[in-house]
Amino acid sequence: MNFTERLLASQKTRQSLLCIGLDPDPRKIPASLQHAENPVAEFNRRIVEATADSVCAYKLNLAFYEAMGNRGWEILRETLAVIPKDVITIADGKRGDIGNSSEMYARSIFKDFAFDASTVNPYMGFDSVQPFSQDPRQGVFVLALTSNPGAKDFQYLKVGGKPLYERVVRRVKKWNIAGNFGLVVGATRPAQLRAIRTLAPGLPLLIPGIGAQGGDLKKSVRFGCNAAGFLALLTAARSVLYASANEDFADAARSAALLLRDEINRYREEYFR
Amino acid sequence: MNFTERLLASQKTRQSLLCIGLDPDPRKIPASLQHAENPVAEFNRRIVEATADSVCAYKLNLAFYEAMGNRGWEILRETLAVIPKDVITIADGKRGDIGNSSEMYARSIFKDFAFDASTVNPYMGFDSVQPFSQDPRQGVFVLALTSNPGAKDFQYLKVGGKPLYERVVRRVKKWNIAGNFGLVVGATRPAQLRAIRTLAPGLPLLIPGIGAQGGDLKKSVRFGCNAAGFLALLTAARSVLYASANEDFADAARSAALLLRDEINRYREEYFR
Repeated sequence: MNFTERLLASQKTRQSLLCIGLDPDPRKIPASLQHAENPVAEFNRRIVEATADSVCAYKLNLAFYEAMGNRGWEILRETLAVIPKDVITIADGKRGDIGNSSEMYARSIFKDFAFDASTVNPYMGFDSVQPFSQDPRQGVFVLALTSNPGAKDFQYLKVGGKPLYERVVRRVKKWNIAGNFGLVVGATRPAQLRAIRTLAPGLPLLIPGIGAQGGDLKKSVRFGCNAAGFLALLTAARSVLYASANEDFADAARSAALLLRDEINRYREEYFR
Repeated sequence: MNFTERLLASQKTRQSLLCIGLDPDPRKIPASLQHAENPVAEFNRRIVEATADSVCAYKLNLAFYEAMGNRGWEILRETLAVIPKDVITIADGKRGDIGNSSEMYARSIFKDFAFDASTVNPYMGFDSVQPFSQDPRQGVFVLALTSNPGAKDFQYLKVGGKPLYERVVRRVKKWNIAGNFGLVVGATRPAQLRAIRTLAPGLPLLIPGIGAQGGDLKKSVRFGCNAAGFLALLTAARSVLYASANEDFADAARSAALLLRDEINRYREEYFR
């Protein structure tokens, strides 16, 4: 199975298009965990145990782990170890460098940590992306249109009458020979999400920004899914992880995740049955 | 002193515009070091001791350290510890993410590892870059035009009649209020380097690709320096690190570095006195 097929299988089996961003902020870990040997790893473990049956994927933003120093990489490893094998894991590092350096990043993400997929930045072009796409089973989500305000600085610039992000989408479609490329499109941009899905009907779309970033969930489902109602990865982090700041944080995260999953599925039934 | 002034001071004091890329590949470490407790850290230490008086800066590509797993971060730390304080250290990670994630990366690079500067990717725009520029003493090199073949995929695309990388240059000039922004421009593109230097006469330019990547050193000096013959960072890695594969690797690296430094200075005398 190539990556797209693996993602589809995970979404069908689990009947969920929800992806949780496991981006732990040590300052926000509930006080009840502060006495654990490793509060952040314990927090992640409890979140995964509480939510694994309601998601198709976890996205781990490497920035949060890098910021914790050497311990961060251990926590990353421990977190990956508790995620069930049939749930897709995405290393959100937005890496990209000249070929031999991108190979190093890819080796770390796919061989050392054994992630299922990775996000990459397109600015340096094909040879910076290609090392991440060597194994068809492993996914590469290329940044197309991001959820942050700065997206307007370059991504919207017109190139031959069309925005730069569309050019990225067209290139990624060409690169996608083995069925393992996808795109990152922020949930905060529903009209553009619709245009991108039309342009790339078969690509997985990683859609961050539902929840704390204020992205529109209904439109993200409607415009982000493929024609069969799959292949959108609706991604929330803070609104799930910190649903409660108290001892009941795992239960609260579970409830928040189930609510999101079910809301997504209601919209899917509305638009795709 | 802001970052530009610090870099200038380092270049003047040391009479060198050479930057060495400390990108150690464990497979290329000389056999004579393989019995050391930590061959890569020892290799870096010997290289730094042999070359510190011939450079103004070291650039450490984070990909190479990340690829070594947890040990890599220790080696990074040990390497930084042996670099003299008046030599500029650049974290070449090409990071960039939404604001709160970029903050995490910046914290790791500038607070945890205490690098003097960082490379960042512009694709996500201002709020992805801004967290790296908080302290005027610390530098931010934004990717403009890279040395790899894939640079042609997006960086050369015409936006309003001008290539995208020029748009990046113009934006970075606007962002550079505190005197701590710079640009990355590959040595493999001398004509474009000339255009970028004309457009940004006062910005530090990090110029990788001399040496193994085949960039033209003479033109890189001529077109990369500011009007006074400074603020270009001519960067070589493999051609210095692996000048010899034998026990004499440190001496060979020293000779290679001195040759490069002196060649750069000859061109500077030719064009800038």
